[in-house]
Amino acid sequence: MPDEMKTIAITMGDAAGIGPEIIAAAWEQLQTLPGCRTVIYGHPEIMRRAAALRNVKSQIDCVTCCSDDVLAVEPGMIDARTGNAAYHAIRRAIDDAKNHAVDAVVTAPIHKAALHQAGFCYPGHTEIFAEHCGVDDYAMMLYLGPDGNLDGQYGLAVVHVTLHTAMKTIFEQITTESVLAKIRLVDGFMRKIIGQDGRLPKIGVCSLNPHAGEEGLFGDEERTTIRPAIEQACSEGLQVDGPKPADTMMLDAQSGRYDAVVAMFHDQGHIALKLLGMYRAVNITLGLPIIRTSVAHGTAFDKAWQGIADPGSLLEAVRVAHALQ
Amino acid sequence: MPDEMKTIAITMGDAAGIGPEIIAAAWEQLQTLPGCRTVIYGHPEIMRRAAALRNVKSQIDCVTCCSDDVLAVEPGMIDARTGNAAYHAIRRAIDDAKNHAVDAVVTAPIHKAALHQAGFCYPGHTEIFAEHCGVDDYAMMLYLGPDGNLDGQYGLAVVHVTLHTAMKTIFEQITTESVLAKIRLVDGFMRKIIGQDGRLPKIGVCSLNPHAGEEGLFGDEERTTIRPAIEQACSEGLQVDGPKPADTMMLDAQSGRYDAVVAMFHDQGHIALKLLGMYRAVNITLGLPIIRTSVAHGTAFDKAWQGIADPGSLLEAVRVAHALQ
Repeated sequence: MPDEMKTIAITMGDAAGIGPEIIAAAWEQLQTLPGCRTVIYGHPEIMRRAAALRNVKSQIDCVTCCSDDVLAVEPGMIDARTGNAAYHAIRRAIDDAKNHAVDAVVTAPIHKAALHQAGFCYPGHTEIFAEHCGVDDYAMMLYLGPDGNLDGQYGLAVVHVTLHTAMKTIFEQITTESVLAKIRLVDGFMRKIIGQDGRLPKIGVCSLNPHAGEEGLFGDEERTTIRPAIEQACSEGLQVDGPKPADTMMLDAQSGRYDAVVAMFHDQGHIALKLLGMYRAVNITLGLPIIRTSVAHGTAFDKAWQGIADPGSLLEAVRVAHALQ
Repeated sequence: MPDEMKTIAITMGDAAGIGPEIIAAAWEQLQTLPGCRTVIYGHPEIMRRAAALRNVKSQIDCVTCCSDDVLAVEPGMIDARTGNAAYHAIRRAIDDAKNHAVDAVVTAPIHKAALHQAGFCYPGHTEIFAEHCGVDDYAMMLYLGPDGNLDGQYGLAVVHVTLHTAMKTIFEQITTESVLAKIRLVDGFMRKIIGQDGRLPKIGVCSLNPHAGEEGLFGDEERTTIRPAIEQACSEGLQVDGPKPADTMMLDAQSGRYDAVVAMFHDQGHIALKLLGMYRAVNITLGLPIIRTSVAHGTAFDKAWQGIADPGSLLEAVRVAHALQ
C-alpha cells in the first residue's frame, strides 16, 4: 500500500451512459480512501448534472478535456460528440499518467459505436491505452476481490488469451507464445496483490476445447499449444496447472484452488466472472507502463441518468488501482 | 405428475467410478418417491458392494446386464471390462424403455476411455441413445430445478447447439436449422415443466461471438445464422429473444428473465450451470422417443469408492424423469 498521497484520474466515459452518475454516486466514499486523491477527466458541467442527480453536496474536481458540444447529447443516445469527448478524456489521462502528473487511471465505460462515429476506430479502451503507451504485450484482466462468493484469500484474477475478436479468429491467436505471455502477466499481477511476504500465485490454465479435448478426440490444441506454454512457465518457477476444462476450472477457482485463471476466449472468463460478482468486478490492463483499471460493465444506456446505476465496480476499480501502486 | 406407478431404470455407469455408490446413497430416498419404482441395470454384486460402502440396509433391485468380468476391476481404473458392462446396461435399458417394460431411463456416469477400450466408440451416452432410438434431431440439455440460487419459478434449462466437438468444428455445425431445432426442443421441454395451465416458456438465445459480434465487428454469425432462426421461431408463436452475449444472457437467466437458454457451444452452458448448481444439475436428452435423464457430472475416478460421492444430481435426475412422464 502507498505511504504518500497518490492522485488517481477517473475518466468520465460516455456522457450518455452511466459513467458520470456512478462517479458522482461514488464520490463521497472516494474522499475517504486514505492516501488517495481522485480527479475526474471529462466535462465539469456533465459532472455537475450527475452530482445533482445523485444528491452529491461536495464539489467534484474535474479537469475539462472536451468542448461544450457534449452538453447537448441526450441520455442513452449514440452520438459522435460523446464519443469524441470520451476519447479526449482518455488521451489526456494517459498523457498525464505517462508524465507522472497522476499515479493511475481509472476509466468509466465508453460506447464503442459512439467512439467509432467520432472517428476513433478502436475495439475498446484497452487498445487505446496499449497504442498510446507503445506496448504490444498487454492483456485485459478481470479481477474480483475476496468476498463471500469466493473462497480464495486474495480474490480471483482472470486473463484472456483472446478477447474482442470473432470466434473464428481465435485459433490463429492462441499460440504457445500468447498463452505464456498471459501466464506471466497474470502471475506478475497476483504477486502484487498477494504481496512481498506471500506465497507464489496459483495459476490455472483453461483448455480451449470441451473436456480439454478428451485426449485428442475433440481437438488437439491442448497438447500442441497450451501444454508447452504451461511447461515453460513451470520451468521458470511459476506455479501453473492445466490445461483443464473451463467449467471445472471455474468451480475450482471459486473454491480457492487458484488465485488466477488464464481463459482462452472471452466467454470462458466473462460468464464465470459475471455470475461470481458482476457488480464488483474490475477490469485491469496488464503490461502497460502506467496503472489502468476500469469498471467491468458497459454504458448501460437503458438505465442511464435515472439515478439507479450501481457504483460498486467503480469503487473497486479505484481501490485496486490504489493497491497496485 | 403421473397418477399410477411408473418404473424407472437406473443404469449403474462405470463400475470403477462413483455411479454405484451414488445410486446406493440415494436408494432409500428413492423408495419414498410417490408413484415411482426404481430398478438398477448393472451387476447385483457391484450394487451389493456399493450398498455395504454406504450402509444401505435394504435390498437394491438390480437387473443383471453383464458378465462377472466386471467384478475384478479396481476403483478408479480405466478398463475395457467396466466399459463393456456399462454399455450393455445402457443397451438393455434402452430396449426395455422402447418396449415399455420401463417408463424412463436415468443414467449414472460412464468413462469414455473405458467405453472406447471396450470397442464402443461413442462420444458419450447421448449418442448411444440417439443411435439406438434411430433419431437425428436430438439435443443434450442441462436442467437446474428452482432453488435459492435461481430466481425463475420453473428452474433453468440450457440446451447446446454444439457440444462434444472441437471448437474449430463448431462453425459448420451452427446453422439456422440447428439453432431452430434446439429452440423448438427446449421449448417443448419447458412446456412440460411449466405444465398445462402455465404461460409460454421464455427462451433466450446466446450469441456465438463476444458482445454478439458488436454490430458485425467481431463476426457476423449473429446476423446471418442465429437471428433468422429466432425470427422463424417467433413466427411460429414461440417466445424467443436474442442473440444476446452469453455472459449477459446467463445473468438474465439467473434473475428469472428466461426459463431456457440456447447456448452455441459447450462452455457457454456448462460454465454457467456448474457455477449455478453443480451438484443439482440434471442432463436430459431431448428428441428421443423415450425419457432419458442423467447426472450432469462424470465418473470422478479420483474419489470413487471412498464413500463420499454426492447423490444429489442422481436424485434430481430421477425426480425430473418422473415429472416428464
